[in-house]
Amino acid sequence: MKIELLDSTLRDGAQSQGISFSVEDKLDLTRTLDDFGVSYIEGGNPASNPKDEAYFTAMLGVELKNSKLVAFGSTCRKGAAPEKDNALKAILDTGVEYVSIFGKSWDMHVTKILETTLEENLRMITDTVRFFVAHEKHVFFDAEHFFDGYKHDRDYSLKTIEAAANAGAELVVLCDTNGGAFPDEITAAVKDAVQVLQGKARLGIHCHNDCGLAVANSIAAVAAGAEHIQGTFVGIGERCGNTELSTIIGDMQLKKGHELVPEQNLRKLTDTAYHIAEVCNLTLPDSMPYVGHNAFTHKGGMHADGVIKVRESFEHCDPAKIGNRRSFVLSELAGRSALLEKIRAFGITLDKDSVVATRVINKLKELENKGYVFEGADGSFELMVLREMGSFKPFFSVADYRIIGSQTDGANAPASAMVKVRVGDRYEITADEGHGPVNAIDKALRKALEMFYPVVSRMSLADYKVRVIDADASTAAVTRVLIQSTDGKNTWTTVGASEDIISASMTALVDSIEYMLYKKDVYNYMS
Amino acid sequence: MKIELLDSTLRDGAQSQGISFSVEDKLDLTRTLDDFGVSYIEGGNPASNPKDEAYFTAMLGVELKNSKLVAFGSTCRKGAAPEKDNALKAILDTGVEYVSIFGKSWDMHVTKILETTLEENLRMITDTVRFFVAHEKHVFFDAEHFFDGYKHDRDYSLKTIEAAANAGAELVVLCDTNGGAFPDEITAAVKDAVQVLQGKARLGIHCHNDCGLAVANSIAAVAAGAEHIQGTFVGIGERCGNTELSTIIGDMQLKKGHELVPEQNLRKLTDTAYHIAEVCNLTLPDSMPYVGHNAFTHKGGMHADGVIKVRESFEHCDPAKIGNRRSFVLSELAGRSALLEKIRAFGITLDKDSVVATRVINKLKELENKGYVFEGADGSFELMVLREMGSFKPFFSVADYRIIGSQTDGANAPASAMVKVRVGDRYEITADEGHGPVNAIDKALRKALEMFYPVVSRMSLADYKVRVIDADASTAAVTRVLIQSTDGKNTWTTVGASEDIISASMTALVDSIEYMLYKKDVYNYMS
Repeated sequence: MKIELLDSTLRDGAQSQGISFSVEDKLDLTRTLDDFGVSYIEGGNPASNPKDEAYFTAMLGVELKNSKLVAFGSTCRKGAAPEKDNALKAILDTGVEYVSIFGKSWDMHVTKILETTLEENLRMITDTVRFFVAHEKHVFFDAEHFFDGYKHDRDYSLKTIEAAANAGAELVVLCDTNGGAFPDEITAAVKDAVQVLQGKARLGIHCHNDCGLAVANSIAAVAAGAEHIQGTFVGIGERCGNTELSTIIGDMQLKKGHELVPEQNLRKLTDTAYHIAEVCNLTLPDSMPYVGHNAFTHKGGMHADGVIKVRESFEHCDPAKIGNRRSFVLSELAGRSALLEKIRAFGITLDKDSVVATRVINKLKELENKGYVFEGADGSFELMVLREMGSFKPFFSVADYRIIGSQTDGANAPASAMVKVRVGDRYEITADEGHGPVNAIDKALRKALEMFYPVVSRMSLADYKVRVIDADASTAAVTRVLIQSTDGKNTWTTVGASEDIISASMTALVDSIEYMLYKKDVYNYMS
Repeated sequence: MKIELLDSTLRDGAQSQGISFSVEDKLDLTRTLDDFGVSYIEGGNPASNPKDEAYFTAMLGVELKNSKLVAFGSTCRKGAAPEKDNALKAILDTGVEYVSIFGKSWDMHVTKILETTLEENLRMITDTVRFFVAHEKHVFFDAEHFFDGYKHDRDYSLKTIEAAANAGAELVVLCDTNGGAFPDEITAAVKDAVQVLQGKARLGIHCHNDCGLAVANSIAAVAAGAEHIQGTFVGIGERCGNTELSTIIGDMQLKKGHELVPEQNLRKLTDTAYHIAEVCNLTLPDSMPYVGHNAFTHKGGMHADGVIKVRESFEHCDPAKIGNRRSFVLSELAGRSALLEKIRAFGITLDKDSVVATRVINKLKELENKGYVFEGADGSFELMVLREMGSFKPFFSVADYRIIGSQTDGANAPASAMVKVRVGDRYEITADEGHGPVNAIDKALRKALEMFYPVVSRMSLADYKVRVIDADASTAAVTRVLIQSTDGKNTWTTVGASEDIISASMTALVDSIEYMLYKKDVYNYMS
C-alpha cells in the first residue's frame, strides 16, 4: 500500500528546544528531504516569524523533484473573516500549492483556551478551508488534540473534521498533540473517523512521543485506515518529539512492504538521517532503530558468532537495505565494501584487498578515535584517501601560528593572529585581527596564501559548526569543527578535531583551502 | 492490576556498547533499584565473567527492602547433565533464591546455532529447570527468540515453554530477542502461550527496541495476559536497547492505574532515572518520555499560554506525580505570564505589570538578540533576574585577561592564559595553561578566585557545549557557550554568547562561579 509521508522537521521540529535553523539550514534540509523522496515537506509558518517568511521567499521558483512543499498556519481568528486575516494572507503570499491549516477539535480548547463557542470554531474551520480552496490550494486540515477531544466529546471532535472535509480539505490529519494516546485508543478513533468522512478526504496521523508510543500509534492508525503519516527525522519536536521517520520507514516499508518513499532510495535512509542530525547540530543517538550506529552492532560474543552463522539469528532485518551496516564491537572489517563504494564516487577505484584500502581503513579508524567524523565531511575524506594513496602533493603548509586574545577593563580587544606559511621553498608571514581567535587566524591564513594563490580570494566560508565531544571532560574535551566552504558555485565540507579549538579549526581550514586548490588543479573546474 | 517489574540494567544493560560497570556501580544500582521498588533485579551471569561473580559475592548477606535478586544463566550444555555443568554450579554458589535461565525456543537456533536436535533442546530445558527446582530455587525461564520461533514453527516454540512450566518454572518470559516483532504479533503469540500454559506458570515479556516498539509491545503483552515486564532504565541494552522502564511505569502505572512499583515511590521516578543514567555515565536524553528535561517543556507561546490556563490543554499527565516539572522555554516566543511563572520557581514573585518585570523582559530580548538562550541555562537566567532587580552584588570581577595559543613547526604548544580578578579592593593576577585557550582560561580563573573563595575548588565543570549561531557568518559568527557545573550534589547551567568564543566562555564561566557563590551565600546549602 502507498502511504504518504509528511516531514515536519522544518516546522514541528523547529519547535524543539535547542533547535534553531537558519534559512540556509532550511534550504539544505529541503534539498535532502526532496532527494530522499518524502511526499510532503512542511516548510514552516510564514506568518509566525520572519525566518520562515524568508525561507518561503527563497523557495520561490525552486523546483522539487519528489516532494511537495507545504505552508503551515492556523484557522482564521474568532469573529473575523479569512479575507481580513493577515496570517492567512502570508500563507497565500508564499505561492505554495499545498496548505496545512490547524484548528481545534477538542471542545475544552475551544471554550477555555480560544474562549469562543463550539459553533464559531466550526465556522472558523469551514471558512478557512473554503478560503484556501477558493484560491485553488490543496488543503490539509490538522485536527489539533483530536484524540483528547474524542475522549472528551466524541461527537464534537468528529464534527470538526467533517466540517473540514465538507469545506473541501483533501486530507484530514488526526493529531495527538499532547502525545498521551495509546494504540487501542488510536485504533478506535481512527475507525470512527473513517466512518464519518465516508471517503470525502484522506486520513493522516500526527503523533507525539510523550508515552514512547508515537511509532506504534502511527502503525495502529494506518491499520485502522489512515494513509498519511507525519513526523520528523531524529524525532525532533516539542517535549518528547514527534514520530521518528526513519523508524516508521523501516517498520512500514522495509518490514511490511508498504511504499513510503521510492524503493530505490531506501538504502539512503541512514545517510539521510545522519545528514539531518548534522544540520540540526544533534548527535544521532547510537541506539536509534535502523539508522543508529549500534542498531546492528553485536557485542555479546554469542550474538556475534550466531550472526555470522545465520544472519537472521540476531538481526531482524538486513542493514544494507537501509544503508546501515553490521558491526562487531572488535572488528571494522564489515565496513570495507561500503567504504570502497564511497571512494568510488570520487572516481577512485580501489581493490578490496589492496594495501591502499587497508591503509585508508586504518587511517579512518585512527582519526575517528581522535574525534573526527567524515559523515558530511566529504572534502576531508577525499583528501585523506588521496594522502593515503600517496598521490596528493600539499599546496602549502602552516609553519607557525600564534594567536592572542585579550580583554582589558572589561572591554574586548579584537583577537589577533600571526600565521607563517610555506609554499615550496618560500615563506610568507603575516597577521590579521578578527572577532575572536578563530576568525583572526582564518583571515591571516588566507591573506598569507593569497600571495601565492590569488584564487583563494574567490572562496569563502559558508558555515562553521562546532561540537564538543565527550563533554564530561568539559573545557578540556575534544572539539570537532566542521567547515563548509563555497566558491559561489560548489560547496565542500571539511573537518578537524582536537582538544584545542584553534587547532581543530586550523585543520579544517587548511583542508578547505587544499581541497579547493586541488580541485582547481585537477579539474580546472573553476576556470 | 499488579504487574511485576524485572530490571535488567545490570545484565542486559551491561551488554550495551559503551557500558562498563564496576562492582561498586552494580552495588549502587542495586540499592537504587531496591529503594525505588522494582520487583526483581537481574544481577548478572555469575558464570560469564569474574565481575558478575564478585558482585554476587558482595551481595551475600545484603538485605533488600523491596526487590528480589535474580541470577542469570543458560540451560545446561547439549549432551550433558546439569549436575556436571560448572556454569549452573556458579549460579547455585551465589546463594540467591531466584534464578533466570534462558533457553532456545526457535527451532532454527536449535538446529543451526546450537547444532543439536529439537528433542535434546527440550531435554536441556526440562533438566535444567528441574535441577534448580530440586535445589529449592524459584525458576524463571527466558524463552529466547520466542516470537521469531513462533513465526517459524509455532508448535515447537510453544513446546519449549510448556516443557519449562511442566518442569516447575514459576515464570515463563517470552523474549523478542531480535526486537523485530510488532504489537499485533505479540498479542497473538501471548494469547496462544496463555492457552498452552493453562496457569501452570506466570507469563512475562522481554522486548528490544529495534523497531521502536518495545514499549508498545510490552503493553500489548500485558493486555494479552502477561503479568511481568522486563526492561532497563534509560533503555540501555544491546543494539537499540531494551524496554525503557520509566516510560513503561509512566504508561502503565501513572496513566493506566496498574501497580508496578509502590505507589508512594512513583514521584521518585525522575530522580531514579537520572541517577541510573549517571552511574551508566550517560546523559539522560532531554526528550525521554516522563523523566526527560524537556518532557514537560513548552516552547511555542501558544502552548505556554494554554498550559497556564488549563494544565491538561498541553500536558498528558501531571509532571509532579513522577517527580518531574513543567518548564517554559525562555524565548521571545514565550509570553509574559510564562516568564513570571518561571521566575516564581526561584521564590521571586513579580507583579505582571511591575517595572522590574518589564526590565527583565527587555533584558531577555536584548540578550536573545545577541545570541543568548536561557532555555536550559537556569543559572544565568536567575542571575539576570537578580541583576535587573538590583538585588545582586557581584562577588568578583574579571579586570583583564590575555590568552596565547601557538604552534611551531606543526607542533601545538599548550595554550596559556593570564587572568586578573578583582574582589572588593583587592586584585589577584595569575596564569595557567591547558588544552586550548578555553581550558587555560578556565583553570587560571579558578586559581585566582580560590585565593578569595576556597569553596570554588569544590565545584567543577560537568559539561561544555558550543554552538555557532548564524553560521553563515562563518568564523565571525556568534558563538554560544553553555556550561553545566556541579558541586557533586547540585548542577546548574550558565550561558555566554559572543563573536569571540573566549569571551562567550568567560561569561558563562563567570556566571557559573557567581551562581555557586550566591547560592552558598543565600542558602548556605553547601555548608
